[in-house]
Amino acid sequence: MYENPGEVRKLIRQGKLKRPTTGLAPGYAQANLVILHKDLAFDFLLFCQRNSKPCPLLEVMEAGKYEPVLTAPGADIRTDIPLYRVYRNGELVSEERGITRYWMSELVTFLLGCSFTFESALEKAGIPLRHINEGKNVAMYITSIETEPAGIFSGPMVVSMRPVKVSQVVKAVQVTSRFPQVHGAPIHIGDPEKIGIRDITRPDYGDTIEIKEDEVPVFWACGVTPQAVALKSRPPLMITHSPGYMFITDIRDEELTVI
Amino acid sequence: MYENPGEVRKLIRQGKLKRPTTGLAPGYAQANLVILHKDLAFDFLLFCQRNSKPCPLLEVMEAGKYEPVLTAPGADIRTDIPLYRVYRNGELVSEERGITRYWMSELVTFLLGCSFTFESALEKAGIPLRHINEGKNVAMYITSIETEPAGIFSGPMVVSMRPVKVSQVVKAVQVTSRFPQVHGAPIHIGDPEKIGIRDITRPDYGDTIEIKEDEVPVFWACGVTPQAVALKSRPPLMITHSPGYMFITDIRDEELTVI
Repeated sequence: MYENPGEVRKLIRQGKLKRPTTGLAPGYAQANLVILHKDLAFDFLLFCQRNSKPCPLLEVMEAGKYEPVLTAPGADIRTDIPLYRVYRNGELVSEERGITRYWMSELVTFLLGCSFTFESALEKAGIPLRHINEGKNVAMYITSIETEPAGIFSGPMVVSMRPVKVSQVVKAVQVTSRFPQVHGAPIHIGDPEKIGIRDITRPDYGDTIEIKEDEVPVFWACGVTPQAVALKSRPPLMITHSPGYMFITDIRDEELTVI
Repeated sequence: MYENPGEVRKLIRQGKLKRPTTGLAPGYAQANLVILHKDLAFDFLLFCQRNSKPCPLLEVMEAGKYEPVLTAPGADIRTDIPLYRVYRNGELVSEERGITRYWMSELVTFLLGCSFTFESALEKAGIPLRHINEGKNVAMYITSIETEPAGIFSGPMVVSMRPVKVSQVVKAVQVTSRFPQVHGAPIHIGDPEKIGIRDITRPDYGDTIEIKEDEVPVFWACGVTPQAVALKSRPPLMITHSPGYMFITDIRDEELTVI
């Protein structure tokens, strides 16, 4: 019953499924959500275009549109995510089960690729992921790598870290390179200080993940980046998904590969 | 003297180089130009995002900016192309050697990838290109494939056709798949009627190119699409390059590959 993305979204819409979306509709891409006023939409779309590794766009909907016709026809972006976050002037003001009452014809919706897709590909390629096996959140860090600014948006890139066995690093690069629409190849391999991370045991978001003797930390651009950058500009209203509670699309993971 | 992209742009800016840009600064990516008023910029950027095969963005510059800092720092988009076209309400009104006198702080510039890049890769892979060898323009056709509309922009996809030996079709797909930022893999292989082309001997743009007995017509999304779609909306002002007179970037062709 949790295999079909349309069925899962229906259960969420009916309030019958309130849990994080990991493991739901396996094989289908899940998406990060950012909703902004149309006055900010060109700058944010340009920011995503210039920073496609941390901000891989799956779909952008014109102002006022709440059906993602390209990635999940029939869905309603206002009701089909189990938990939303509402920010006013850059401050979190509430978590909501639905956002219909916030909806306005001036709102533009951005759906961005999420790393669940390439993580499943890594596991299939025989590369274990410790944060998943230990039931933790991935470790995320604010780096010294600046994103390319666009209009009012700028800020540092946030990365996620996964420890990979030395002998499997090349394979990890190859596997994730095939998925440019969901963060793609790593941003950095090895020494955390080279990208401005002083203490690998203290992530800025998520949980601390152990790195063993025969492993190397591998860093990928993270979908937290666009949210962090957007919040920094203190938009009057911004709505996102709540971490872990993603939008489930009808796009199969394998459709997001290149060659 | 025509090897370095910065040097070539300088000669163009000084009015010392007025010819088409084919063969100039070999190995560097050349770009299509579209300049529109900022009121249309979000819709056009969204159109390109939704239709990345015919509209592969290399750089988008904020309103009023004329230096492409990401793809050709130091260049001036108003003077560094040998020939421009100016359209008013969808009609061509003039061809110009420079567009500084048209410049306004409300103009947004789009640079889109061009097929020169993948054509050079095809030739290096041993796949001859008849239109180049015969000194002709590539054959282009309006198809029955609809682009994904965005805001005010919609219309059919335009494709370019290159005859490829049956034994080299797979190689042609592989080589061009590596260049998603310059149109990428073919849109269609074989029967022209399947994509709405009734008479392959009568292209809508460019020259008629012979298809020999042991060859298959292979079709790629074409950069004429975004211009055709933009003109259809009859924008008060639109400026483009003149066909064949491209903007030469500092980006090496190989930087535009994936894996």
